[in-house]
Amino acid sequence: MNHDRLAALEARLTRLEDERDITRLVAAYGPLVDSGSAPETADLWSSQGVYDVDAAYLDGQEQIAEMVRSSAHQGLIHNGCAHLLGPPHITVEGDEATAVCHSLLLIRVERRYIVKRATANYWNLHRTERGWRVATRTSRLLDGSPESRALLAAVADLNR
Amino acid sequence: MNHDRLAALEARLTRLEDERDITRLVAAYGPLVDSGSAPETADLWSSQGVYDVDAAYLDGQEQIAEMVRSSAHQGLIHNGCAHLLGPPHITVEGDEATAVCHSLLLIRVERRYIVKRATANYWNLHRTERGWRVATRTSRLLDGSPESRALLAAVADLNR
Amino acid sequence: MNHDRLAALEARLTRLEDERDITRLVAAYGPLVDSGSAPETADLWSSQGVYDVDAAYLDGQEQIAEMVRSSAHQGLIHNGCAHLLGPPHITVEGDEATAVCHSLLLIRVERRYIVKRATANYWNLHRTERGWRVATRTSRLLDGSPESRALLAAVADLNR
Repeated sequence: MNHDRLAALEARLTRLEDERDITRLVAAYGPLVDSGSAPETADLWSSQGVYDVDAAYLDGQEQIAEMVRSSAHQGLIHNGCAHLLGPPHITVEGDEATAVCHSLLLIRVERRYIVKRATANYWNLHRTERGWRVATRTSRLLDGSPESRALLAAVADLNR
Repeated sequence: MNHDRLAALEARLTRLEDERDITRLVAAYGPLVDSGSAPETADLWSSQGVYDVDAAYLDGQEQIAEMVRSSAHQGLIHNGCAHLLGPPHITVEGDEATAVCHSLLLIRVERRYIVKRATANYWNLHRTERGWRVATRTSRLLDGSPESRALLAAVADLNR
Repeated sequence: MNHDRLAALEARLTRLEDERDITRLVAAYGPLVDSGSAPETADLWSSQGVYDVDAAYLDGQEQIAEMVRSSAHQGLIHNGCAHLLGPPHITVEGDEATAVCHSLLLIRVERRYIVKRATANYWNLHRTERGWRVATRTSRLLDGSPESRALLAAVADLNR
């Protein structure tokens, strides 16, 4: 019986560790992208990972790293900016997981910051040999479009 | 002795799971309300739950769902908005819990977002047959009032 | 064998509890400082703790409490302000830990809030007899300076 209790404890603990790993992965995005850490940002995704964000569809780690190295992004971080995430709503099911959260892009203008973008984010993650990685992150500007609201509405299903 | 160690482990694990459940509940609010998911937003509260926010005192799930369906709220989400929470400070005591956090309401105006509200939030939660639910959420605009600061000052007592 | 499995479980659980304690410590900062809770804010640091933030180098709990009591800070909180943190990226190694996150300072101006500061934060924490406390928090405005980006770039090393 103790054996069964131990096995049950181990399973519950592994679930909490999975959630911790995903929380930490998502929390790494802002600091990595705002510090211009191109390969490390890309490494949050799996090798076939996708970052689908409004006009840009970044397919694979190399395109994600290129976005960080681009003159547009370098211009932002040398001017002063912050990619700030809201608290992620995380759901783990075996080797797959979902995280839903808001994000803001703030840009320094004179002696203050303006919020240039407020975005809905839906992350699909999976367990790889190197730990949890992003399979697809889909992000849409919260501009009133049904598509942006649909990304956030996923939480309604995930909470059932 | 192993029996006692197992029981102690189970109790510590249950505490972490409670905190995880509350973290996830609070993190669901922004995505649900910004996607217009009225019943699912209301279901974060218990059936007798209260959302007490400045001018509005929403008493019970139906009034909370009505707020989400209201033309005022629908106008916000069809224009583009974000209800973004800060990291919650969570304290569990048995079947009761407290979460304290900031929240922001951002509204799209032309090609950017303005922060229309910055709010202090004090959540009372309790364990129900369906899991953790909000008993009372009290929210006050951070406009310099003693009442708004008092909601945040609760963390001083909770940290003792 | 059960003994080894129990010991392994206890170690994993302690790690999660450490991370929970640090998450909670960091989440306490905003509510405490925005409520003007001077000694409780200072008590997030250890007795020799340092808060190194741009122009100010606050050395020890008394200087941190004085900052909260200062007329500059009291002016902010009586006007209406929010110190909002992003999700912390936490790394525990034995009795030392690191947290990296963004923070925003929002100030009420007329009927809205402006983001006066967006800041990179690097926290060193250590385990004390009274639980986890901040040893050093280093914060730099995200104004494009290499120094501010370097604080966030720490996540690249911590993720290895």
